[in-house]
Amino acid sequence: MTDNARMKTSDFDFDRYDHVRPIRWTGDVLELLDQRKLPFAVDYARCATCDAVAAAIHSLTVRGAPAIGIAAAWGVVLAARSLHAANGLAALPLLEPALQRLNAARPTAVNLAWALARMRGVLAHAGADWCEALEQEAHAIEREDLAANRHMGALGAALIAAGSGVLTHCNTGSLATAGFGTALGVIRAGVAQGAIAQVFAGETRPWNQGARLTVWELQQDGIDATLIADSAAAHLMKTGQVQWVIVGADRICANGDAANKIGTYQLAIAARHHGVKFMVVAPSSTVDMATASGELIEIEERDPAELLAFRGKRVVAEGVRAWNPVFDVTPHDLIDAIVTEKGVVERPDAQRMRALFG
Amino acid sequence: MTDNARMKTSDFDFDRYDHVRPIRWTGDVLELLDQRKLPFAVDYARCATCDAVAAAIHSLTVRGAPAIGIAAAWGVVLAARSLHAANGLAALPLLEPALQRLNAARPTAVNLAWALARMRGVLAHAGADWCEALEQEAHAIEREDLAANRHMGALGAALIAAGSGVLTHCNTGSLATAGFGTALGVIRAGVAQGAIAQVFAGETRPWNQGARLTVWELQQDGIDATLIADSAAAHLMKTGQVQWVIVGADRICANGDAANKIGTYQLAIAARHHGVKFMVVAPSSTVDMATASGELIEIEERDPAELLAFRGKRVVAEGVRAWNPVFDVTPHDLIDAIVTEKGVVERPDAQRMRALFG
Repeated sequence: MTDNARMKTSDFDFDRYDHVRPIRWTGDVLELLDQRKLPFAVDYARCATCDAVAAAIHSLTVRGAPAIGIAAAWGVVLAARSLHAANGLAALPLLEPALQRLNAARPTAVNLAWALARMRGVLAHAGADWCEALEQEAHAIEREDLAANRHMGALGAALIAAGSGVLTHCNTGSLATAGFGTALGVIRAGVAQGAIAQVFAGETRPWNQGARLTVWELQQDGIDATLIADSAAAHLMKTGQVQWVIVGADRICANGDAANKIGTYQLAIAARHHGVKFMVVAPSSTVDMATASGELIEIEERDPAELLAFRGKRVVAEGVRAWNPVFDVTPHDLIDAIVTEKGVVERPDAQRMRALFG
Repeated sequence: MTDNARMKTSDFDFDRYDHVRPIRWTGDVLELLDQRKLPFAVDYARCATCDAVAAAIHSLTVRGAPAIGIAAAWGVVLAARSLHAANGLAALPLLEPALQRLNAARPTAVNLAWALARMRGVLAHAGADWCEALEQEAHAIEREDLAANRHMGALGAALIAAGSGVLTHCNTGSLATAGFGTALGVIRAGVAQGAIAQVFAGETRPWNQGARLTVWELQQDGIDATLIADSAAAHLMKTGQVQWVIVGADRICANGDAANKIGTYQLAIAARHHGVKFMVVAPSSTVDMATASGELIEIEERDPAELLAFRGKRVVAEGVRAWNPVFDVTPHDLIDAIVTEKGVVERPDAQRMRALFG
């Protein structure tokens, strides 16, 4: 597909989209744009320790599969600075407890484990400069994520016919990544090219990533988006205003099954029912070839309180029970294209996934 | 199906379910349980004029297709009291402007027009006692709605295999009717019989009827219900915990297409995808044989502000646009059973609908 991309990444003014930086490394501490407070306050939380980073990942101060991978890499750097070891191999067992705590912060996104594995890989071969090597690796993870997003933007936008309407879910923009975004990167590129004429965003209950983050992010770029209730998606599709659903992923299995924010699966079913196409956009760090299919993915269930109150105000009567799974799995046969920086897998299945990632 | 019903309405202790009365006629004014304030305050709004009733219907102080029909009937009574006419036929043209204002309060539910047509019918034949005749007709509409709900409870519950899990949407309980409820009446009857082992309720954005009203109403009866995000429904179905989706309707067309709260259509698509059955429960006053199919139904779009704020707190950045259609249409071929007090239409289509309602 790369050759067919109408827009090369080199032709694109990416600086336009550099308004929002969720992760800032000062050289001493990690600053995380507190996504719990957006869009009402733009406030950075300072993390001076590895455990503060793990807590920030768990509490959704930082969220989005690529972003939590990057934040975890910086958490390893912070943990490393408090240790004394002769070289990387000696540091590895000393760091392992911190790596485990970071890994346990959230279960579904594979990017977390992927980033930690990269940090482990560096340690295994680093000498006395192991601490600096970790810092360089964290920088590399962040830089590569941004480059991947920019490339995926062009690859994904090339699939979309001119004048299309698109619907997205959750937040997959700069806030969820090192910048530009995955699904939102494709939408940014598609709007810039004229492929996308209309953008709809589902509010994404219960955490309202769509309502709080996505429409706000697009507003920073001057891209008009229309917010809808999650349950208005099928009705929207019936009106013919949407040709593609474009979403991110937290884990993509060897057969192309993709875990993503709760509600994604429902959108995929509705899209297929209406002949609307369904695109998953994620860097190859989200691909988990060691997990054969979606049933094997652990689906995180979070505190029911997320459904019971909003911004500190109770929504529901006292004593009511809620069930709050925050991801679901979209089976590969409902996906028309998986877009990664390594290329596009159309009508994904185990064989086509293996051809690109095997 | 009536003969197969495992539970006759005569065997059932309906008084257990008489906690919630949304509509109270004092003899002079109409008191409406203010559903905008539930479950945080149980507060009745007093309507002393027809226009106050119309405003209460428009503002969702009272809501639910059967309930707004009943409230409108009382609105006619209030309008009548301010008029002087010799008999019903003389009163009819004088009342027509008030009837029109009530009818315009909300467009989608046919029960409003149906109740007004009944009131017109009474006027056409009433003598000097026309004002009292209207009051009796309003009482009759309310009484018949309650009886219909109780009967539908038995008919609907009879369709459900023992030990089933069910999912409902919006609020279709006592709050939406003269009492007991439509879909929620079936759920009440099904729980009492042991047909229903588990109840799930979608929160029903943007107005949160499920989160604010349904789980609260069930709580009054001691029925445990589990709240979910609307977009968790397909994932719930995939887990096998739900065998039926049971919803109400605001208008059922001659071919069985049913308009109901936004999100119902999406649930019907997901239900069919998972082999979960889909039941629509509504009194025959919701059946509109004059409307051939769902494309002809006007779908109400409400103020986008309903999506942008909650309980006075802003949810979304300033300047964001939203689209807020509050109903959608489920085509008859996604419906397994339409339950009315006149009987059950399984696999509804124009011919089967005509057989019962023609």
